[in-house]
Amino acid sequence: MANKTITGPKGFTAAGLHCGVKKSGKPDLALLYCAGGAKAAAVFTTNAIQSAAVTVCKQHIVTNPVRAVVINSGNANACTGAKGLAAAKIMCSKVGKELNINAEECLIASTGIIGQQLPITKITTGISQATGLLSESQAAGQNFAKAIMTTDTRAKQATQTVEIYGKTITIAGTSKGAGMIGPNMATTICVITTDVAISKPLLGKAFKHAIGTSLNRLTIDGHQSTNDTAIILASGQVENKAIKKQDSGYRRFSRALSDLCTDLARQMALDAEGATRMFTVEVKGAAKKDDAFKAARAVADYDLVKCAVHGSDPNWGRIICAVGSCGVKLDPNKLSCKIGDTFVFRNGKPTNFDPKAVSAIIARKEHTITVDLGVGKYHDFCYGCDLSRDYITINADYHT
Amino acid sequence: MANKTITGPKGFTAAGLHCGVKKSGKPDLALLYCAGGAKAAAVFTTNAIQSAAVTVCKQHIVTNPVRAVVINSGNANACTGAKGLAAAKIMCSKVGKELNINAEECLIASTGIIGQQLPITKITTGISQATGLLSESQAAGQNFAKAIMTTDTRAKQATQTVEIYGKTITIAGTSKGAGMIGPNMATTICVITTDVAISKPLLGKAFKHAIGTSLNRLTIDGHQSTNDTAIILASGQVENKAIKKQDSGYRRFSRALSDLCTDLARQMALDAEGATRMFTVEVKGAAKKDDAFKAARAVADYDLVKCAVHGSDPNWGRIICAVGSCGVKLDPNKLSCKIGDTFVFRNGKPTNFDPKAVSAIIARKEHTITVDLGVGKYHDFCYGCDLSRDYITINADYHT
Repeated sequence: MANKTITGPKGFTAAGLHCGVKKSGKPDLALLYCAGGAKAAAVFTTNAIQSAAVTVCKQHIVTNPVRAVVINSGNANACTGAKGLAAAKIMCSKVGKELNINAEECLIASTGIIGQQLPITKITTGISQATGLLSESQAAGQNFAKAIMTTDTRAKQATQTVEIYGKTITIAGTSKGAGMIGPNMATTICVITTDVAISKPLLGKAFKHAIGTSLNRLTIDGHQSTNDTAIILASGQVENKAIKKQDSGYRRFSRALSDLCTDLARQMALDAEGATRMFTVEVKGAAKKDDAFKAARAVADYDLVKCAVHGSDPNWGRIICAVGSCGVKLDPNKLSCKIGDTFVFRNGKPTNFDPKAVSAIIARKEHTITVDLGVGKYHDFCYGCDLSRDYITINADYHT
Repeated sequence: MANKTITGPKGFTAAGLHCGVKKSGKPDLALLYCAGGAKAAAVFTTNAIQSAAVTVCKQHIVTNPVRAVVINSGNANACTGAKGLAAAKIMCSKVGKELNINAEECLIASTGIIGQQLPITKITTGISQATGLLSESQAAGQNFAKAIMTTDTRAKQATQTVEIYGKTITIAGTSKGAGMIGPNMATTICVITTDVAISKPLLGKAFKHAIGTSLNRLTIDGHQSTNDTAIILASGQVENKAIKKQDSGYRRFSRALSDLCTDLARQMALDAEGATRMFTVEVKGAAKKDDAFKAARAVADYDLVKCAVHGSDPNWGRIICAVGSCGVKLDPNKLSCKIGDTFVFRNGKPTNFDPKAVSAIIARKEHTITVDLGVGKYHDFCYGCDLSRDYITINADYHT
């Protein structure tokens, strides 16, 4: 069986272990190493309050090549002031010492509780241990994926292979949810590896596009965290002719990368805190692109819609309420809504649909809600998930 | 004991009964009558999709005097097309026939499920019955308050008396929650009576201000409904010198009306779907007024904050996440947050607070979260409530 983890693409080794940040004893430290060096790109949270890890990662992402990524879970290192910033720098310099690389060649991310100082000694000890465990095995990739998890119930991984200029290249990725997720960017932590040879600017362009159409289209509870970070490293070790312009090779790579990110976004929606199912909101007939996304997000974020989905209830009035309430241009006499392929509201009037049949559509693992605003040609979409009692349990009982 | 219901002020009779809209057998039709005629003002939802009742009420509110208000619960008469509009007009004309007044002298509101046609025969039969039951008794006022309820667990009523130019005037009001509530305007249905003599424009001005600082500062789940309607009728029967300019008499009336609306808003927050407690978010140090309200609302609307409040968890990182994520100007190094009187985050750094003591503050029936953005002199506030498993139960199991 092929290695489907982030150590699948050529040139990468990884490790994941428990160093002591999480009281639960679960893995909380992840290390990725690309000895030969990699082109790197990243997308970060736009929250005005950013983790010290984000601050440091933004400085290091300009380095070329990048050689390592270190991530801790269980503590976000956000709202931690100068001490937190120093801790983030120590993490990178410790990786640098252990791997004999520059601190600037190491990217970093943190995820977990906001506002507590990192137990930095535990982490640096963990980094030493992780260095000794670095491996290109599938088990090592799995350990990395597990070590970035917080309230996720399972590791999220995806892989794609695609032929570029006659060579088969591999892309692999892992991401973690499972709450505090709203565009842009709904990514929390996402790490992708690939062995393609590509220029740094084109890698960044393809990555931004892929995140924009996948993880940035996912909302779980409407707010982006202070730590959202998505990183891609390209080792170039498959030795294809390097992608240096936006030709067919670039387009093939870009499409495969987008497909992989969409795969991860769907896994995140289905493993959102307390979620039992996901849905896609497609809005069309909008006067502008922004309106289409705004309306799609208003529906996906609306607790009453999320509750109706949880209860398999075809209560389309809540969908219309969200659309009408969000400030986009619409024509009340042309406004229409479908659940799956069934019109429940058409041209401003209710239809005679079979509620049991539509309820069965909503009860599926995934379904699509389509809204036509009736005023233009623009469309966009958003992924959402249901809201369950378990979301409350997870988030009311997760004490600081 | 004084009559504390909307039949308390002089000149009003009311009735409330079950006419058959609600399957539960609970009261679902409310009628208010002011035989002598009243000055009236109203505030309506700004949702782009509006109930037929809102459409008709907007036409009738210009009438002077107004003599009646008819309300049904259990069905919103929204998204019901031309048939729904005809039904709303029939309700008013039926009231007109029964009371021997013009249909235009009757205001109207509906609340309940969206997208189903009204059982109009049941309602017109109910209007006949209600006419026969009209009374100025406290019991009649109570029946009115109960008949506008949907998922509310208790009727919400408030009263104020204030001296205007040497005469004691009375204001009384009732409102219903309990979900699909987000500014502006978080009112669903609110009916206020007063026996003050006041000009129609000044009544409208005072009412808009009162709703603006009370019910429009309340968010339960972030979306206004298609039906939100707040109505005030002033009978003038206390025979004070009429309020015709913005003098001390106007200011006294305006303050009492605002206090009454704030009382109702707090009752709505405490009886929100599934809510066990409420909180006020005060934002100060904002660069502009809009930013202050936007940040306050972002915190009050954020499910993770609402869950933390439910669990009495001083997880202030979620508050900071919401503020940072909502797009307002702030200074990360001056950003501060208090829960009750305790700083939990000050000038961009965590404080050493006692988590047990702060948890006890959050466990109260009401508490205040204060956020200082550190960039300006503007402030604003928003009311919110916790998010519980019962909210999910109510809204996932409430089938169409």
